[in-house]
Amino acid sequence: MSTMFTARLARAREKMTADGVDVLLLSVGADLPYFCGYEAMPLERITMLVVPRDGDATLVVPGLEASRVKPRPELFALRPWSETEDPIALIAKLMGPASTAAVGDHMWSGFLVDLMSARPKTEFRRASSITSGIRSVKDAAEIERLRAASRAVDVIAARLQQGEIPLIGKTEAEVSAELGRQIIAEGHDRVNFAIVATGPNAASPHHEAGSRVIAEGEALLCDFGGTMIGDDGVGYCSDVTRCVWVGSRPDREYLEAYAVLHEAQAAAVSAARVGTPAQDVDRTSRERIAAAGFGSYFIHRTGHGIGVEEHEDPYIVEGNTEPLVAGNAFSIEPGIYLPDRWGMRLEDIVVATDAGPDSLNLVDHHLAVVEA
Amino acid sequence: MSTMFTARLARAREKMTADGVDVLLLSVGADLPYFCGYEAMPLERITMLVVPRDGDATLVVPGLEASRVKPRPELFALRPWSETEDPIALIAKLMGPASTAAVGDHMWSGFLVDLMSARPKTEFRRASSITSGIRSVKDAAEIERLRAASRAVDVIAARLQQGEIPLIGKTEAEVSAELGRQIIAEGHDRVNFAIVATGPNAASPHHEAGSRVIAEGEALLCDFGGTMIGDDGVGYCSDVTRCVWVGSRPDREYLEAYAVLHEAQAAAVSAARVGTPAQDVDRTSRERIAAAGFGSYFIHRTGHGIGVEEHEDPYIVEGNTEPLVAGNAFSIEPGIYLPDRWGMRLEDIVVATDAGPDSLNLVDHHLAVVEA
Repeated sequence: MSTMFTARLARAREKMTADGVDVLLLSVGADLPYFCGYEAMPLERITMLVVPRDGDATLVVPGLEASRVKPRPELFALRPWSETEDPIALIAKLMGPASTAAVGDHMWSGFLVDLMSARPKTEFRRASSITSGIRSVKDAAEIERLRAASRAVDVIAARLQQGEIPLIGKTEAEVSAELGRQIIAEGHDRVNFAIVATGPNAASPHHEAGSRVIAEGEALLCDFGGTMIGDDGVGYCSDVTRCVWVGSRPDREYLEAYAVLHEAQAAAVSAARVGTPAQDVDRTSRERIAAAGFGSYFIHRTGHGIGVEEHEDPYIVEGNTEPLVAGNAFSIEPGIYLPDRWGMRLEDIVVATDAGPDSLNLVDHHLAVVEA
Repeated sequence: MSTMFTARLARAREKMTADGVDVLLLSVGADLPYFCGYEAMPLERITMLVVPRDGDATLVVPGLEASRVKPRPELFALRPWSETEDPIALIAKLMGPASTAAVGDHMWSGFLVDLMSARPKTEFRRASSITSGIRSVKDAAEIERLRAASRAVDVIAARLQQGEIPLIGKTEAEVSAELGRQIIAEGHDRVNFAIVATGPNAASPHHEAGSRVIAEGEALLCDFGGTMIGDDGVGYCSDVTRCVWVGSRPDREYLEAYAVLHEAQAAAVSAARVGTPAQDVDRTSRERIAAAGFGSYFIHRTGHGIGVEEHEDPYIVEGNTEPLVAGNAFSIEPGIYLPDRWGMRLEDIVVATDAGPDSLNLVDHHLAVVEA
């Protein structure tokens, strides 16, 4: 796996050379584990992998986290800092003569303010300008890890559809906690989210599972995923959404809208081909939903890239004219949301391949009717 | 509660006036809920409360999260942005003629890079330069909320000490999950961490609970806490550490070291008085541990402030010469860590008051011996 990290860092340095970036600074976020297998703790003590384009990399870590780091001397020197040292001064020094730095997109802004103060003549850019194009093209091994994570949540979604997860009389929060438990039980190391929205709550796409009790005669939207971390320290994410009708008699209006959604989602998956601009995939689902009269109720983009991070490039959104390339992995998740009434979304993770779209989620796409 | 938020924002604007800051920009992190009761989702779609010193505030949120926001027109105008709008341009415009901006310390750096590009003449500082001095002085209601959170984890720590949580034969990860369940069951809305470290693993202060099975004849370190969110949308954190000896016969060396730690922790709590420089509290515990010969094994600061955030000002660390003021709340958590052998830490949350240190954690401080 060190060979893998070495190759990834070499690709980053190639891109740094092409873009005129002298040093890459990776802290909290997905870049760090992707490039060296270590994940920074999101705390006030800074962690930073300093990668000079033309020199050796150094991993600066808080002293009391040093024992969490698996030494990889072929990749980086380890530089723990003690509680009374100034880590910003240390990092600023390791940046050497750099005039342009690319800094991790998710690093805390407070640290960037400090770094700018210590390096007033350095220009700072987003690290994603270097890393995103590398991370967004998955190799075969990465696709298999994404597939394993998708299959694990498919198992849970199937249980939901088959009435094996108790719903009636439970609160959204209780079902969310149960989904979270199953996400871990099915092999993930981390629950990233487990949205459970019943009835009108589903009209808010990012609804937080709360105290509303699930009852018969309503739809339930479940959108959940986690991260499966491998022995190399790199994690890959799952993300799936399915809706079920609770009770025996689905509402006719809901059923009709679901049929529109189902068809729109399938059409977008089919459209997700190598060479197709990302926005065309978005348009494919949007046009179908709009044609059925629900256009103003599809209030978000069609999807987001996925990999070591839950949301990453490429975004499947109007305005993204970049053509899909083989190895791009992303969600296809159109939705329809009627304020104060109901909401629905249908989501799969799809990989663009030279053989066409490869959907990693295979669990039934129909509206399940459950009486559990 | 709107009165509370209004008062808090007024204090922020006073500090902005004193410091010459024209606009405060709050995004992901604890400042936003503290000042307006809303918490931003840590996603690639930016959320930003724009607070001009001399104008009305605006909360910029992703359109699909707008329904999560409780409207507070007396505090801010709500400005949802759609999937095809440019939120950075929107925020840059709302900043008006500002020449100095204070930006949330935990905001993603990628957004700061974008903002600097949109506002090349604006000077950016840390928002904490405005907010930290306000947040670190807790009023009576805040102290009671911290107390409630501390009591909830005390209940769990007591169960641990009384052998009511099964340990022997369980993995660290299983016990961590059980602590997490109890943190929620005892009234928290969120688990922030549940460190469970057995035997030599405890020598790593931030050890992640793993697959090591707990056995008799070893010490176990548990450090856990969560956030209790009130009806006003503001959450307060708990954080407690207790060690237990698993089995009937604690190791003599461990017992002797624990006695040193116990005494050092109690001394530091007693030293945490209004007017005492924070570093003197650190020195109080450090001197005692050093006098017993363990000085080089106490490898972290004595504590951190706590409130809406798990770690915030004031830090109880060498170099922090700021005197404690009434209403400061912080952890007192010295530790001793013998590499490859064992580790121990003892932690309470303490509030500095005019009547002396008020320890919010009251669960037994002795080393419990459990055979569960």
